[in-house]
Amino acid sequence: METNHGHRHGHGDDGDIENVEVLRGKETGGHGDSLEVFDKNNSFYGRSQPLLVKRTNTTSQIAIVGANSCPIESLDYEIVENELFKQDWRSRTKVQIFQYVVLKWALALLIGLGTGLVGFFNNIAVENIAGFKLLLTTGFMVEEKYYKAFAAYAICNVSLAAAAAALCAFFAPAAAGSGIPEVKAYLNGIDAHSILAPSTLFVKIFGSVLGVSAGFVVGKEGPMVHTGACIASLLGQGGSRKYHLTWTWLKYFKNDRDRRDLITCGAAAGVAAAFRAPVGGVLFALEEAASWWRSALLWRTFFTTAVVAMVLRAFIQFCATGKCGLFGEGGLIMYDVSSAKTAYSGPDILAVIFLGVIGGIFGSLYNYLVDKVIRTYSIINEKGAASKILLAITVALLTSCCSYGLPWFAKCIPCPADESSCPTVDGSGNYKSFQCPPGYYNDLASLFLNTNDDAIRNLFSTSTEKEFHISSLFIFFASVYCLGIITYGIAIPSGLFIPVILAGACYGRLVGRLFQPISSLDTGLFSLLGAASFLGGTMRMTVSLCVILLELTNDLLLLPLVMLVLLISKTVADNFNKGVYDQIVKIKGLPFMEAHAEPYMRHLGAGDVVAGPLISFCGVEKVGNILHALKSTGHNAFPVIDEPPFSDAPELCGLVLRSHLLVLLKGKVFQRERIISGGEEIFRRFSAFDFAKAGSGKGIKLEDVEFDIEEEEMEMYIDLHPITNTSPYTVVETMSLAKAAILFRQLGLRHMCVVPKSQGRPPIVGILTRHDFMPEHILGLYPHINPHK
Amino acid sequence: METNHGHRHGHGDDGDIENVEVLRGKETGGHGDSLEVFDKNNSFYGRSQPLLVKRTNTTSQIAIVGANSCPIESLDYEIVENELFKQDWRSRTKVQIFQYVVLKWALALLIGLGTGLVGFFNNIAVENIAGFKLLLTTGFMVEEKYYKAFAAYAICNVSLAAAAAALCAFFAPAAAGSGIPEVKAYLNGIDAHSILAPSTLFVKIFGSVLGVSAGFVVGKEGPMVHTGACIASLLGQGGSRKYHLTWTWLKYFKNDRDRRDLITCGAAAGVAAAFRAPVGGVLFALEEAASWWRSALLWRTFFTTAVVAMVLRAFIQFCATGKCGLFGEGGLIMYDVSSAKTAYSGPDILAVIFLGVIGGIFGSLYNYLVDKVIRTYSIINEKGAASKILLAITVALLTSCCSYGLPWFAKCIPCPADESSCPTVDGSGNYKSFQCPPGYYNDLASLFLNTNDDAIRNLFSTSTEKEFHISSLFIFFASVYCLGIITYGIAIPSGLFIPVILAGACYGRLVGRLFQPISSLDTGLFSLLGAASFLGGTMRMTVSLCVILLELTNDLLLLPLVMLVLLISKTVADNFNKGVYDQIVKIKGLPFMEAHAEPYMRHLGAGDVVAGPLISFCGVEKVGNILHALKSTGHNAFPVIDEPPFSDAPELCGLVLRSHLLVLLKGKVFQRERIISGGEEIFRRFSAFDFAKAGSGKGIKLEDVEFDIEEEEMEMYIDLHPITNTSPYTVVETMSLAKAAILFRQLGLRHMCVVPKSQGRPPIVGILTRHDFMPEHILGLYPHINPHK
Repeated sequence: METNHGHRHGHGDDGDIENVEVLRGKETGGHGDSLEVFDKNNSFYGRSQPLLVKRTNTTSQIAIVGANSCPIESLDYEIVENELFKQDWRSRTKVQIFQYVVLKWALALLIGLGTGLVGFFNNIAVENIAGFKLLLTTGFMVEEKYYKAFAAYAICNVSLAAAAAALCAFFAPAAAGSGIPEVKAYLNGIDAHSILAPSTLFVKIFGSVLGVSAGFVVGKEGPMVHTGACIASLLGQGGSRKYHLTWTWLKYFKNDRDRRDLITCGAAAGVAAAFRAPVGGVLFALEEAASWWRSALLWRTFFTTAVVAMVLRAFIQFCATGKCGLFGEGGLIMYDVSSAKTAYSGPDILAVIFLGVIGGIFGSLYNYLVDKVIRTYSIINEKGAASKILLAITVALLTSCCSYGLPWFAKCIPCPADESSCPTVDGSGNYKSFQCPPGYYNDLASLFLNTNDDAIRNLFSTSTEKEFHISSLFIFFASVYCLGIITYGIAIPSGLFIPVILAGACYGRLVGRLFQPISSLDTGLFSLLGAASFLGGTMRMTVSLCVILLELTNDLLLLPLVMLVLLISKTVADNFNKGVYDQIVKIKGLPFMEAHAEPYMRHLGAGDVVAGPLISFCGVEKVGNILHALKSTGHNAFPVIDEPPFSDAPELCGLVLRSHLLVLLKGKVFQRERIISGGEEIFRRFSAFDFAKAGSGKGIKLEDVEFDIEEEEMEMYIDLHPITNTSPYTVVETMSLAKAAILFRQLGLRHMCVVPKSQGRPPIVGILTRHDFMPEHILGLYPHINPHK
Repeated sequence: METNHGHRHGHGDDGDIENVEVLRGKETGGHGDSLEVFDKNNSFYGRSQPLLVKRTNTTSQIAIVGANSCPIESLDYEIVENELFKQDWRSRTKVQIFQYVVLKWALALLIGLGTGLVGFFNNIAVENIAGFKLLLTTGFMVEEKYYKAFAAYAICNVSLAAAAAALCAFFAPAAAGSGIPEVKAYLNGIDAHSILAPSTLFVKIFGSVLGVSAGFVVGKEGPMVHTGACIASLLGQGGSRKYHLTWTWLKYFKNDRDRRDLITCGAAAGVAAAFRAPVGGVLFALEEAASWWRSALLWRTFFTTAVVAMVLRAFIQFCATGKCGLFGEGGLIMYDVSSAKTAYSGPDILAVIFLGVIGGIFGSLYNYLVDKVIRTYSIINEKGAASKILLAITVALLTSCCSYGLPWFAKCIPCPADESSCPTVDGSGNYKSFQCPPGYYNDLASLFLNTNDDAIRNLFSTSTEKEFHISSLFIFFASVYCLGIITYGIAIPSGLFIPVILAGACYGRLVGRLFQPISSLDTGLFSLLGAASFLGGTMRMTVSLCVILLELTNDLLLLPLVMLVLLISKTVADNFNKGVYDQIVKIKGLPFMEAHAEPYMRHLGAGDVVAGPLISFCGVEKVGNILHALKSTGHNAFPVIDEPPFSDAPELCGLVLRSHLLVLLKGKVFQRERIISGGEEIFRRFSAFDFAKAGSGKGIKLEDVEFDIEEEEMEMYIDLHPITNTSPYTVVETMSLAKAAILFRQLGLRHMCVVPKSQGRPPIVGILTRHDFMPEHILGLYPHINPHK
């Protein structure tokens, strides 16, 4: 009988500590291309062979953008069952359980309040900054100082853009972009440190305000989701020694499971705050963001978004009195279209189907182009902060030129009879006169020289068929579609919802005008359906988009049509590529676990992908061996194997975590003899909280420990039994990888032990981690497998 | 080393074949009480000891009502990996995968169409039957023939009720009640044969129409959910030999996973059809019905409900032309309140909080009383079909007396100035004149002598503060609350939504009238909030109720208040008891697996609850042994253990299923020698579809097989390897039961193998099934455990 007693070997793990290797610059572009190739055939591995050999099984992360800033760890949702934790469970009193429950709801309340406040602040700030900018510009326009007007407009835009980009570049590079892919990855179990850090939160809030005010074709929705998640993460840190927040209650949240729940609530609160759509927020978190979900969480998320809705409603009521500067009217419904008569018949439905199909194609094209643009920009952005800022300024200038230049091509249109959509004298209304005389308005300027929200409101407005020329709509659609694509990827917090809604609404209005001869549906409603088709084509959500659109527009009667459009556009777009957030997750190299297993995984066994020699410990192990293993590998867990004399034959005692070992090493719980101590000393000196998982990037580090340990202590022993998780999840080596992957994903594991089929062999074959299930890893080991068979 | 070679022993399993023991009559009541006691302390087991000893571990089902009609099996969502299925996977062509995908969507479409049609038929039938009955009654009233009117009214009601009860009693006892608990249990993995049978579908549709038309305080929502699930189950049978529907495509759905998905779609379609609420339907399926959920399923469910919405919309548009008899106007929105001005301030919110708290108390009281009534009625219902019908007739008579008698206590109210709510001459309007002279109306009659839908519409109607007297509202509230409670449990298909909404709406209007001095909120909106509070208090759903109410009433501005009310009433009610559907699942004795583990499960290991001796097979086993094991136990799976000479030491080869064994026995795949055959004969003679799981109650039975096998064949061997699932999920015996329960629940298992901690022992300790996780079983084994610690 062979035992791996003498030598201890390394097994594959997350590559937690090693800095993740990233491809940059020219290479990145090239690699991006080969990823494309890999999607079509498997010649990828032929071309990139050296790279993969070099990186074998330390990580499967193949990042294109932004990943160099953060080493990636996995989160661990397993219930660790060691002696110490079991004792802790048994001793938990009713009071402690009560504290936990109270705090759980209190934190949900705080997340709701915080996100609601930020959402409201964001609204006010954008309306006031952008409003000031627009008033300044129109002021000059009224005086016919056209060049001065452009200068004022462009300077405002460029400086706001530069400020946003500088914040991102210098303080928190992780705050760039939408944030939804990162939150989605976190909720899938990927912990890239800085994505939920306080600095990211700060930059996300202010960068988003500056970016949106700068007139970019970006939204605040993605950043709000990220903001909500950051707030939740901050609250879930379990206190802070630095700021003397070491309240016992907070410690209950020092584990990944509770943090995951909080961050799910945060993501939902973000959507609720951005769209004033509480139910939509819950559904967004459920459909797009979260990878694990329980009924109890639905209920807590619902509470959080209800708090957000109430906070927003209270502030909006307060602002209706005119105390919030340029942020004035408007209720909870952002774009109310409920006034339109909704009756539709056969031809209308045909028009809507056409709209959905073309919208799906445009949506998937959007995803394709965004992907290309991100890859191109990453080359520029990698060159440093200065080039990031320069890129943002360039795009800001381009946007300014479009917004100010293109309206000159539009003809002046006389105001309609009821004057409701006529420009106000001071230019603060939704319709702009631009160069036109009083009594006339410029339809393109009414779309371009407005905040994105107001432009959408104009496009959605009902009973206004003729108020926008087809040519104006076409110019606006083309420029917004392109601007949206080239804006995503610059180093500012930038949401994708608003650009897509804006382009989609314009597209819908265009289609509505084209179908006017045969369809009696209001063009405002067409505009809404167009927005739905674009959203379905890019985001690929269904129920949540449906409810968000409902809550945005308050038109329930249109629901069947919205559902139809979403179904069609998603189906069409799914034929071409994946949803935009999935694409970005992939580009960022985040090892996302899908809910389903790939077909080729059925042909492999769990034992087939276990790689590398295995490092394991004895039940009572030498300090020196432990220290060496921790130093020489980045593994996060080590199997503990009991051997004679502690057992009759070698048997798997369980798994021990790196962080738990470090606690024992720091506390120097050593013993001179190689005996099972029973753990009394550990139980006396430590509580379960000492082993609780610290917040991301915190916790004891190996460097803190290794120099404290003296030479003679190296020869002493540690009894690992009290901290060994005695019931890790195991699978037999012959289980198909597909089945193992589903087990791994559904339980949210970080480590899965593979045990041998037959007795008489060493009791563990290897450990599977998230990276072992990644296609890059598997197809690297078995290049002959065709992933698309 | 001990091996269990010689004797084979029985291990605990679902008790599939044995008829489930049920408690009836007097005993039931007594047992019901002791279940109550068990909820409070653990003296339960002291009192019921004999019962439990007798039933040890064959099943934990402790049914109070209706379970005698169906033996209960578990569903199996595990991916069975045996040689045969692996070969099948590998050989699946792209065409077959395409067929599968197409059929998946085609079935979703058919479920949507079918459920939509049934929902529409239901609507038309109820409106016409009940309308005819009401017109007849009011006709006599106008002629002042009051006794004749009552006689007509009561005879109609009683005969409709008797018909509904007779259908239920004679054709499908499983069709009685709401159906949502049964669907919920099915989706949790509990297969009680007749609950989704075609006869149940038939009775559910027609019984529901008759019951609702009979004027009972019941709804059609629960039955519609059940109907949708039945339709889905019927479509998912995988064809039928009897009706020559043996299309290959249909066979892809012969497994529990695909059927589960279909039935989830069906449940969603049911809600969508009942409330005309497509998004609410999806969320209902997600929040209340389904136990497992994936993003892909959300998308398919959404498609199904969209189809339902479109079918309904098309038919409603068709009926608007007057071709559907008394079913006339009305769009997709059932109770439109969007006309009301929604502005609220501090005092309104206080009033709403009060409403929520009291609503929660009333809701939980409702659950408590329904529980008691069901237990009482079960004693009557057990006595046979005649007593079932008699009970229904009694309740129908009582309801008729209330509806016709109580309006006499109301005073006549002069019609309001705008005449919109004045009774029409023929009595078909929403307001009834009853005994009043022209120009006056009777407010109580307008509530009582109407269909439930119209009564709710009257209560929800806005800007009608004074149209109902407080005394009338109070009388109506009290009688509807009581009638709702005593009606649930009689042998007719009866939904719970409508009674709760009706009582809640009336309660809300009452509270609105009380708070009129301080609150400016419309009483119609109060009525809506009251309905929300009752729904939250009984059903304990959140997001789905919110969306359903939104889709019912089309008032998005009220959303924050509805959310607040739901949160409060659910929180209050959760302090008293569980949701009404959970209660009914428990009363019916269905072994429901909760998503979380009970605290006491942390103190036990998985090995601690494994009971009974284990029956296992050799890799190549004697036919006689197999037949004996199948005959003498009801187990559904048997471990297969390879022993020398097939392996060096005994090792767990996997699990073999009863149904797969029966296929081999029927096909007589026997061999004379005890050797590993390699399975060529099996691969040649059978395809994977032959082993596919037949629909509930179908499949090969032991009786079909055992008499065909001759004496000499008994001594022959079967090579079990090709049909053995070689990778069953295993847990180590020391894993805490809590952790094992979560694994079991999250993966949707039917069997979980418990393996020993140390090598050198037999390779399997036992098999855990659903019943081993039931509190009744565990606390029966360990009576000293306090389940509420």
